Amino acid sequence: MKNYIVHDNWKVIEEGFHPEFNLISESVFSLGNGRMGQRANFEECYSGETLQGSYIAGVYYPDKTRVGWWKNGYPEYFAKVLNAANWIGINIRINEVELDLAKASIHSFRRELDMQHGLLSRKFEAVLTNNCRVRVESERFVSMANPEAGAIRYSLTALDFGGVIDIQPYIDADVKNKDSNYDEKFWEEVTTQNHPESAFIVAETKKTAFHVCTGMKYKVFLNGKPVEVNPEFATREKYVSHTFQITVKEGDILTIEKYGVNLSSQFHSKEKILDKAFDVLETVYDQGYDALRKEHTESWLNKWEGSDILIEGDVAAQQGIRFNIFQLNQTYTGDDAHLNIGPKGFTGEKYGGSTYWDTEAYCLPFYLSTAPQNVSRNLLIYRYNQLDKAIENGEKLGFTHGAALYPMVTINGEECHNEWEITFEEIHRNGAIAFGIYNYIRYTGDADYLAPYGFEVLLGISRFWNQRITFSEERQKYVMLGVTGPNEYENNVNNNWHTNKMAVWTLKYTLEVIDFLKKNHLQSYQSVAEKRAFDEKTETVRWKDIVERMHFPYDEKRKVFLQQDGFLDKEIVPVAELNPSNLPLNQHWSWDRILRSCYIKQADVLQSLFWFEEEYDTETHQRNFDFYEPITVHESSLSPCVHSILAASLGKHDKAYELYQRSARLDLDDYNNDTEDGCHITSMAGTWMSVVYGFGGLRVLNDKLHLNPFIPKQWKSFCFSVGYRGAHLKINVSTDKIKIENHSGVSAELMIKGKALKLEAGKELEVAMI
Amino acid sequence: MKNYIVHDNWKVIEEGFHPEFNLISESVFSLGNGRMGQRANFEECYSGETLQGSYIAGVYYPDKTRVGWWKNGYPEYFAKVLNAANWIGINIRINEVELDLAKASIHSFRRELDMQHGLLSRKFEAVLTNNCRVRVESERFVSMANPEAGAIRYSLTALDFGGVIDIQPYIDADVKNKDSNYDEKFWEEVTTQNHPESAFIVAETKKTAFHVCTGMKYKVFLNGKPVEVNPEFATREKYVSHTFQITVKEGDILTIEKYGVNLSSQFHSKEKILDKAFDVLETVYDQGYDALRKEHTESWLNKWEGSDILIEGDVAAQQGIRFNIFQLNQTYTGDDAHLNIGPKGFTGEKYGGSTYWDTEAYCLPFYLSTAPQNVSRNLLIYRYNQLDKAIENGEKLGFTHGAALYPMVTINGEECHNEWEITFEEIHRNGAIAFGIYNYIRYTGDADYLAPYGFEVLLGISRFWNQRITFSEERQKYVMLGVTGPNEYENNVNNNWHTNKMAVWTLKYTLEVIDFLKKNHLQSYQSVAEKRAFDEKTETVRWKDIVERMHFPYDEKRKVFLQQDGFLDKEIVPVAELNPSNLPLNQHWSWDRILRSCYIKQADVLQSLFWFEEEYDTETHQRNFDFYEPITVHESSLSPCVHSILAASLGKHDKAYELYQRSARLDLDDYNNDTEDGCHITSMAGTWMSVVYGFGGLRVLNDKLHLNPFIPKQWKSFCFSVGYRGAHLKINVSTDKIKIENHSGVSAELMIKGKALKLEAGKELEVAMI
Repeated sequence: MKNYIVHDNWKVIEEGFHPEFNLISESVFSLGNGRMGQRANFEECYSGETLQGSYIAGVYYPDKTRVGWWKNGYPEYFAKVLNAANWIGINIRINEVELDLAKASIHSFRRELDMQHGLLSRKFEAVLTNNCRVRVESERFVSMANPEAGAIRYSLTALDFGGVIDIQPYIDADVKNKDSNYDEKFWEEVTTQNHPESAFIVAETKKTAFHVCTGMKYKVFLNGKPVEVNPEFATREKYVSHTFQITVKEGDILTIEKYGVNLSSQFHSKEKILDKAFDVLETVYDQGYDALRKEHTESWLNKWEGSDILIEGDVAAQQGIRFNIFQLNQTYTGDDAHLNIGPKGFTGEKYGGSTYWDTEAYCLPFYLSTAPQNVSRNLLIYRYNQLDKAIENGEKLGFTHGAALYPMVTINGEECHNEWEITFEEIHRNGAIAFGIYNYIRYTGDADYLAPYGFEVLLGISRFWNQRITFSEERQKYVMLGVTGPNEYENNVNNNWHTNKMAVWTLKYTLEVIDFLKKNHLQSYQSVAEKRAFDEKTETVRWKDIVERMHFPYDEKRKVFLQQDGFLDKEIVPVAELNPSNLPLNQHWSWDRILRSCYIKQADVLQSLFWFEEEYDTETHQRNFDFYEPITVHESSLSPCVHSILAASLGKHDKAYELYQRSARLDLDDYNNDTEDGCHITSMAGTWMSVVYGFGGLRVLNDKLHLNPFIPKQWKSFCFSVGYRGAHLKINVSTDKIKIENHSGVSAELMIKGKALKLEAGKELEVAMI
Repeated sequence: MKNYIVHDNWKVIEEGFHPEFNLISESVFSLGNGRMGQRANFEECYSGETLQGSYIAGVYYPDKTRVGWWKNGYPEYFAKVLNAANWIGINIRINEVELDLAKASIHSFRRELDMQHGLLSRKFEAVLTNNCRVRVESERFVSMANPEAGAIRYSLTALDFGGVIDIQPYIDADVKNKDSNYDEKFWEEVTTQNHPESAFIVAETKKTAFHVCTGMKYKVFLNGKPVEVNPEFATREKYVSHTFQITVKEGDILTIEKYGVNLSSQFHSKEKILDKAFDVLETVYDQGYDALRKEHTESWLNKWEGSDILIEGDVAAQQGIRFNIFQLNQTYTGDDAHLNIGPKGFTGEKYGGSTYWDTEAYCLPFYLSTAPQNVSRNLLIYRYNQLDKAIENGEKLGFTHGAALYPMVTINGEECHNEWEITFEEIHRNGAIAFGIYNYIRYTGDADYLAPYGFEVLLGISRFWNQRITFSEERQKYVMLGVTGPNEYENNVNNNWHTNKMAVWTLKYTLEVIDFLKKNHLQSYQSVAEKRAFDEKTETVRWKDIVERMHFPYDEKRKVFLQQDGFLDKEIVPVAELNPSNLPLNQHWSWDRILRSCYIKQADVLQSLFWFEEEYDTETHQRNFDFYEPITVHESSLSPCVHSILAASLGKHDKAYELYQRSARLDLDDYNNDTEDGCHITSMAGTWMSVVYGFGGLRVLNDKLHLNPFIPKQWKSFCFSVGYRGAHLKINVSTDKIKIENHSGVSAELMIKGKALKLEAGKELEVAMI
């Protein structure tokens, strides 16, 4: 755990340069706008430890799979989002010495991420090896208003010298992914173009043939006045730079504004991409830095209006939760259904920027509550669009007749992952995708999603479960053998309770959906049935039998659901009784020892109890929580939130808060020593849920928004914004009361602490906390 | 399956060149002498498909492990036996055209492996692109009498031309392993030396720093008369060649004898290895080809005397079994306890030439019956020498207090394998090593092995089982969770019956050994106990409790032992009912599908029933065989033999023969399409067991050699040689009688078809078959 980030309500601040944490800072201070993102690399040259990272959403490369021992069914490649052209670079030489913070002596360094406005800035003074002392102030953003553009304002003050400053803005597309499996580069140059004060590179990805056009244009000012420059162009493969000299005297302030654009062939024709980039760049250049910045910061303020959480009485918590919301909003904006949410967003390369079940399980609730409905809907359509690939994926594993198995990890719908115990066996993910449909409709009421989209996906997934489940003659029950649950500290187990639950639930829900569609959208239903050769009568017979006769491991003595067959053969010793030197287990125990232990990586049975909370009485929740929580090690960043929410609803407030804290500042404090690889974006949605679902007690049941809040004793009050079916609500929870304001023109049906209330448009109400 | 090898009782013959099968032929026609080996590469240049392979036993390189996803506990490297200097090479140019069978037109080609004498020969006529027609006859061997030497006699007849023949004998140590993980070369040159008509390279392995000195010396004859040559030396890194020209006229016969030596720093000091190689090479050179060949072929005749199996009435079977015996004798001669048996011997690189449990399970019985006692003993001492490494290996996985886990794959005692389900979980191998000790003593009567060696190993293994087994409160029984049995088509299962059996048996046997040692070798016992901090009184309490209260999965209804917990939840469908297009499963089904199916890769419960046959009554054997055999797919070459032996002892003679046939000519006919990677050496011992244990019914029980033979109806008679406690017996089985000859000065206690008989030295006896 690190503790170098200054606590502040709205800002993330590094005071004094910490080169030893630079990789971490580069992750934490990252910028993004859903379509492109940029690690907090320095604009000027830096020869110290750095991971240069510019990423363009959706632009991926199928990197040949690397394994120790091949198993049948492994995918041939791992599609990964690519490190793309560096558009932020500006090399600076002062009287022939390179400005490089690894080689200068540095004074009063401050790096600051203004989360409210989406601005990254730096200030420092540096004394170079030639003793020139320079002050640098830089600010940059990737525009939330114009998703293809970004801008930098970079100023140098000649504090104690005069002479010549060489300035060299550049674009470098000759980059590679740190995690390249075979140390290959993934880009090839298509063309480069130079103009006075601007330049472009069009690069193409190998194999996938995406084109990305990166452009830069700059303005230079001396003491605030524009300066004409006469740059010298240099090009080499996949690289262009412009170099010019400015003569300064002591006290002069030299400023360069650099505008960058990234256009991809996902949104533009390859033939016109360069012309189009030229236009976009001209537009933002003409607009100018301040105007561009203004529309960007206004977009951010608008986002915060819908998603902010205000915490009074705990600056660290306030900074932590806003950082999470900020990153989630940077990563996915929902304007395009073929994009999704990588576990590291645009902050690093780990996990390939691919889509996991994290999207449905953790992220969807965040966007449901904080963004317009189409944002969540696009997350669902993403899976709808990949249905045929999921069916192909099922076929590769021997399934037939339209059985869809969604991949564990994907960009384009094909499976990328290659650990058999995950790839082939962690199939509960398929249920999460079905649950996402249900959850979306439950929240939004948008049942019309089913006919054109949702049902087809549910049908594919139900067909998969139907084939994957077998009948045990021995038990005279249906069973599901050889799976891995969300708790990846068990592999290849039989009858994982959660997976069995997801399967049976999906079948039941699909049967309900069929009834609903037959009543309400008969024609659409029939046309999907025809398209997918679905013979309801014959196919659903076994579905219904499975619903009736599925085996669920259960302990009669303790009256708890068992994570899997044979779970009680393990030695059950609470984590608290382990010598702490064993923790985290994944760093201290060999894999087999972890597997045969009782310890749980992340919510498994409890994941179901969270998702299907209302099906079980409080005693059942209590018993299962009390059995599983003490043996859960939470060694996934996705783990604590579910436990925290369950603890909250069981009235275990201290436990809920303790669990919330385990991920609240995960990246700001580099809790797991891995933030240098990028931030834990999808886990951030879990932390948000801990606050809103956990402390706020938010649920949507029977077309009502339920709130059942408590306030952690460490806080004075907290306030969160949620949207619900057109209403925009601010919920303020303090020790004595809950105050709810409806900032919209739509009334809302609420259930506050068990009491049904209607909150009219524009009104507010208060309920005592007791 | 291929069918190009000509059937012959003593020879393996390729008639007409089959370049499309050349990689297979190179494996099949390989030569070895336990200390070095050589694939059947051509002496002259060959630009067609070839895998050059020269191997020196025990010389390995730790190749950095390659994985897709790292798991804690994985070994850092895979130690693999190295492809070493090519000493056989002789380039030939005829009137300036290279002799290269890929480019010449070939007539009357014949490659022949004379298994009786250990000689590889080739004859062919080739017409080169310059129309010169040449006849080549070559013969070579690696000496069974002088394990560091080999020799080649290579003759060219100028059939229709005169002119100049360039001859270029060379040594090439600039070689690499086909299976190098990172495409690296593993050798570095130490020195090279040239003398008139001889040359040497000393090369060093990276990391492990083995030195190997390879030397060559040659004689040239024209029409049988020695010729003086004046070679030109060429050297480059790790390579030397001598080139000279001989002028021939039509009809001339030009012969080169090339002598090669390989000395390794395992047996010689690095300082003196070159001098020593010089001496060895001079000696064999002075001895001359014919004398060297004679002592070599005599050694082979002697080996056959102890190990031959004669089959009358089936040439294919005769050739097959002799090929297996030949390869086993080539691979391991037992003269050094730090060598062992790689799955491919010296015939290829796959599996790294490392030691597997195959040694104890399959190979040991072969050497017990066919080689002097010290050969088997050295196999055991190999494990004894690696005990401390096995304890370290246990420590890496969290075990303590001297618990030894022998690796799945090893050369130097450290684990090399890196699939978690195998490396960490296929721990029954540890039991196989304990069983090897028991089996050796049972066969030889050499209980004196226990005090200085065996007990220490048994103690380490017993300590491992004791810690690996846990107590299930739920069952009130001991359990073993998270293992993989011999049937690798199941992973991470609980209570694999065979593994549980091996554990309990080891504990029981170790307790018996302790009693025996306390009675007979108290002092040795006490000194081992002290060395290993063994507190018998306290440590054995739990051992005994485990023996009493271990859980063994059992089906009360069918009265069969269950392979693991939950096995009956599977859909049990006999292999015979599968559509054959599914077979082999490992080429058609994804891994998860294989895992959750009932299909068995190789004997698992039945492995125990074979090893502990006498503990169970015939009905038990019958029921278990009838349950498991129909669902066994035998997709390991090690599988059919155990089933064949059990079928034989149950009187299922046709089944026994059918199963024997599945591996009898595995490599000769390239049954599995993988002989190009090398021959299945360890499986050959299994085939030998099918004949001797299966058809011959050989067992050793209560200090008596049992024989209970039957004769497959496809054969007229078969005769096998076995050694037993100093006696050397030839057992001839024909349809009407068993005839046993005692070719030794020692009498033997026999049990023939249930009847106790004593066969005096030098005598023979007959028993009617009925």
